[in-house]
Amino acid sequence: MEKKKIEQSCPKKLQAREASVSPAVIKRLPRYFRYLRVIMREGIMRISSSELSERMDVTASQIRQDLNCFGGFGQQGYGYNVPYLYAKICEILGVGEGYTAIVVGAGNLGSALVRSPMFERRGVNIAALFDVDPARVGKKLGDIPILSMTQLESFCARHSVDVAVLTLPKDCTREAAARIAALGIRGIWNLTGLDLENSDGGPVVENVHIGDSLMTLCYEIHRLEGREERV
Amino acid sequence: MEKKKIEQSCPKKLQAREASVSPAVIKRLPRYFRYLRVIMREGIMRISSSELSERMDVTASQIRQDLNCFGGFGQQGYGYNVPYLYAKICEILGVGEGYTAIVVGAGNLGSALVRSPMFERRGVNIAALFDVDPARVGKKLGDIPILSMTQLESFCARHSVDVAVLTLPKDCTREAAARIAALGIRGIWNLTGLDLENSDGGPVVENVHIGDSLMTLCYEIHRLEGREERV
Repeated sequence: MEKKKIEQSCPKKLQAREASVSPAVIKRLPRYFRYLRVIMREGIMRISSSELSERMDVTASQIRQDLNCFGGFGQQGYGYNVPYLYAKICEILGVGEGYTAIVVGAGNLGSALVRSPMFERRGVNIAALFDVDPARVGKKLGDIPILSMTQLESFCARHSVDVAVLTLPKDCTREAAARIAALGIRGIWNLTGLDLENSDGGPVVENVHIGDSLMTLCYEIHRLEGREERV
Repeated sequence: MEKKKIEQSCPKKLQAREASVSPAVIKRLPRYFRYLRVIMREGIMRISSSELSERMDVTASQIRQDLNCFGGFGQQGYGYNVPYLYAKICEILGVGEGYTAIVVGAGNLGSALVRSPMFERRGVNIAALFDVDPARVGKKLGDIPILSMTQLESFCARHSVDVAVLTLPKDCTREAAARIAALGIRGIWNLTGLDLENSDGGPVVENVHIGDSLMTLCYEIHRLEGREERV
């Protein structure tokens, strides 16, 4: 119902513009989501692009440009309506869609993610974890059951699963991904460190390499050292 | 010694070009590092930009452009010398510098990271974990001791620590970061979800938001659904 209402208020324009939004802007939207969430919780209802710019450490013109891609939410001299902007970004990102996910691999990383508020905040509901370790299978993480990998197909036949989160060892990743694709699950959030390819008709894959940013950090330290040595 | 030798073989050119390398290229280097590591382990000594392009799903011209930023490693008609390219990227990223890190927060995420081969592969040595929970303090994770947060200053006085990895709750993050900055630690790899600012003279900060890529994934699923509905 809510979804329909928003679409009606801004129908063609939003859809038309969305088609041409660059992946770079899309990649920045989760950051707006995070900041606006905090701003809303502070009770702020309206914010100018320059105030938002200061908080986010991004130029105001970048902000105006990014948000304009989706039809423009701001009004000249008034600033952005925070709850509206937040709702709109949630809508664009599909946060309100109530996606259901399973986590494949109930080790440290899988458990850490499930215990964090990350999924809940993004409107993703975790239905179950899966693991091969008999010591884990049958237990629960909070309210969420840890099931055996042998139950993957039967579980997914009974539940509508949108996303599979992969936190299992690298060498089991391809086999698990093939089973997930065969089940018609539409998205794979892959944290295993092994790159999976996006293929036509297959699930959308997002490969995450946490360690890459550690290397960027080491590069920055290394570069600063070089400067200090040259001074 | 090793470092000096490499610098002598390619001194001014590398340094001069490095100064103008865009952050976008730097952000892509860890990916080259990962792929080249695998290619080396397969025993491949030489690779053309088109072969590398196919593996990495990046255009060959992008690869040539990226690697040319650092003085160019390839030879026309010969391709890239894999071990040399790998060594060079490691050198640029500071992988061989033998940085020492501490992990602040020995919960699920901290433990998952320490147990993974991520740090070792990137030449980062974990000296200790720190936590406030008495149930964790005094234990070990593999060979690595879990110390009390009260020992942070005394430990860092005795050990040379380059990087602090933050995996503690959001609401303790600012205080911990201030203590780390006061200790003169040069880098903070921040996985707490709370953005920390880079400040002049302070440690280099790399804020990691694992959840952002989950949102990008949800966006893609949402977008594909929209297309299917319109068909």
